[in-house]
Amino acid sequence: MKKIIDPYGSELPQDYTKLIKDFGLEKFNPEDFPSSNRLMRRGVVFAGRDLKIIAKAIKNKKPFYVLTGIMPTNDKLHFGSKMIVELMAYFQKMGAQTYILVADLESAAARGVSLEEARRRAMEFHIPAYIALGLDPKKTIFYFQSQNRDVVQLGFEFAKKITLNEFKSIYGNADPGRIMSAVIQAGDILYPQLKERMPGIIPVGVDQDPHIRLTRDIVSRTKAKKFFAPSSIYTKFTPSLDGSLKMSKSKPQSCIELPEDVETACKKIRRAVTGGRATLEEHREHGAEVEKDMVFELLKQHLIEDDEELDQIYGEYKSGHMTSGQLKDLACEKMTIFMTKFEKDLEDARKTVSKLNFIKF
Amino acid sequence: MKKIIDPYGSELPQDYTKLIKDFGLEKFNPEDFPSSNRLMRRGVVFAGRDLKIIAKAIKNKKPFYVLTGIMPTNDKLHFGSKMIVELMAYFQKMGAQTYILVADLESAAARGVSLEEARRRAMEFHIPAYIALGLDPKKTIFYFQSQNRDVVQLGFEFAKKITLNEFKSIYGNADPGRIMSAVIQAGDILYPQLKERMPGIIPVGVDQDPHIRLTRDIVSRTKAKKFFAPSSIYTKFTPSLDGSLKMSKSKPQSCIELPEDVETACKKIRRAVTGGRATLEEHREHGAEVEKDMVFELLKQHLIEDDEELDQIYGEYKSGHMTSGQLKDLACEKMTIFMTKFEKDLEDARKTVSKLNFIKF
Repeated sequence: MKKIIDPYGSELPQDYTKLIKDFGLEKFNPEDFPSSNRLMRRGVVFAGRDLKIIAKAIKNKKPFYVLTGIMPTNDKLHFGSKMIVELMAYFQKMGAQTYILVADLESAAARGVSLEEARRRAMEFHIPAYIALGLDPKKTIFYFQSQNRDVVQLGFEFAKKITLNEFKSIYGNADPGRIMSAVIQAGDILYPQLKERMPGIIPVGVDQDPHIRLTRDIVSRTKAKKFFAPSSIYTKFTPSLDGSLKMSKSKPQSCIELPEDVETACKKIRRAVTGGRATLEEHREHGAEVEKDMVFELLKQHLIEDDEELDQIYGEYKSGHMTSGQLKDLACEKMTIFMTKFEKDLEDARKTVSKLNFIKF
Repeated sequence: MKKIIDPYGSELPQDYTKLIKDFGLEKFNPEDFPSSNRLMRRGVVFAGRDLKIIAKAIKNKKPFYVLTGIMPTNDKLHFGSKMIVELMAYFQKMGAQTYILVADLESAAARGVSLEEARRRAMEFHIPAYIALGLDPKKTIFYFQSQNRDVVQLGFEFAKKITLNEFKSIYGNADPGRIMSAVIQAGDILYPQLKERMPGIIPVGVDQDPHIRLTRDIVSRTKAKKFFAPSSIYTKFTPSLDGSLKMSKSKPQSCIELPEDVETACKKIRRAVTGGRATLEEHREHGAEVEKDMVFELLKQHLIEDDEELDQIYGEYKSGHMTSGQLKDLACEKMTIFMTKFEKDLEDARKTVSKLNFIKF
């Protein structure tokens, strides 16, 4: 039986290599892309679909786009969103036309957030946060889903192209609300190609792959429209500080949000699962089990940009010279620097939102 | 097992009395409504849901609305649409706020009609035809589905409120395209209540009852929004001239369209199934089987306004004084008068479309 990843639910992939095989993904090779970023170099980005067409567009300076959506339900971000923004910023630097949509229809339907409230949250927090995390606002095209009639029309057309069974085989189930969200989302993913026919890449967590599959199926079902099937690029999850697969607000003690006050964040880091040994003696003798260490993972994925610095820490910790406590001190220090800068950049970005490039409908 | 009426398909109800029972409809009583129109008086309108609240609103001069949609796929109307317009016009005269939406999203998705083409057809034909058939354009509010964000947002929210099984039990199946159409249509049906909370009535052919049931279910599922469940009023089908249940373009020889050139229409009438006897002698002796006569049905439903005139024809035909040939001559004459007037009124109405009351979005 085909394994289902449910992008809305709780079933999560345990084995990324197996995922690549089961879902027919391409293994990501950082050497295919110029100036790979931290996430790409360190295997946090681990797979994709149709990556070559994007690598080629970058190489030949041909038009392509990168796109993501903002769900304005929450007033915080998480590290998963941060990774997506960093990949968006990477492709933006490589020349991608950059689209960010605010999924206000979705947040209204799923969570009862009014369109006005969604707009407020997007303008006051999410968009400034995305800018603070590295997007160039001058080079980014924004729109609200509810204002984009083309997207709604595409979604409507796409719904007629898929059967219930196809939908079930991709998503595992087919609630009407899920169907409607998914086809509108496919409309979002392909929307930039209404303006200019070009390949596009969608950075997502691997749990979002069903949306990519559905959209690719729809493209093959609507040949007359000559859409490029969307390429995609997948990040691993940022693990929960308690060692489970995905950092999630459902376990607030093991989840650091963006922003979070530094004291709270450091408290959480101090309670994290580490690869330290039971006693100092054992630790000095055998060294840390770095692979099991959630604090090291946080440093690797998010807090240390420089590869040599990370290598040095790895060596000291692995050899037992550095203790878990020292690693936590270091992580707390890095987190403080990061969070302080993020909050300042967020404040600065808020001043620029009046000048953003929103599509006029 | 619950019987399914499929509003999109070919399964059609044979027995209206049984339908009332099976679907829990109210039998329509023309005496509940002041100044009942021809269709109401003659049993062509045969059932409804929540009719009392509308009768009460009329009696007490309280706000209520009547709503229908235009599917701008075709460049002709049929007699079924004519009945709906006549009911719209009746409720409009009784004080209803009158809404007509152009289902351009639906026609784009289902038939590939572009929004521009849908607009052209609606403005050049469908809306003028509705005016020609009796709607007062000054008192009617129009909108295009694709421009109405509130409707799309309602549809999106409603999709989250229904399960796939509920959908299946109402429609008999649940293709994604059908789901999307249906929830957007529920959005249309309830949209006027976003502006003013009031009951509303939707005149439909009985094959459209699933949309009404779905919308009523959605209302009961979204209590916080305090919508009135839509009332509905059902017309029988105009039978095909060959004696089958529903006049349909799939049998062009037995279907008179609006407009249709008079000569062709008369030819079709002359080929219609009648209640005349095998020989003139038998006819004079036993009289016509009026109940089986499609020409009489056409006169009754559409071509003769005056009840006494219709009664007189009934008497003469039933008694055998009038032959089927004479009845056909009469029907052809009435059809000519009707069609000539319709085409002239259509031409006049076309001149008024620039002044219509379209909602500004």
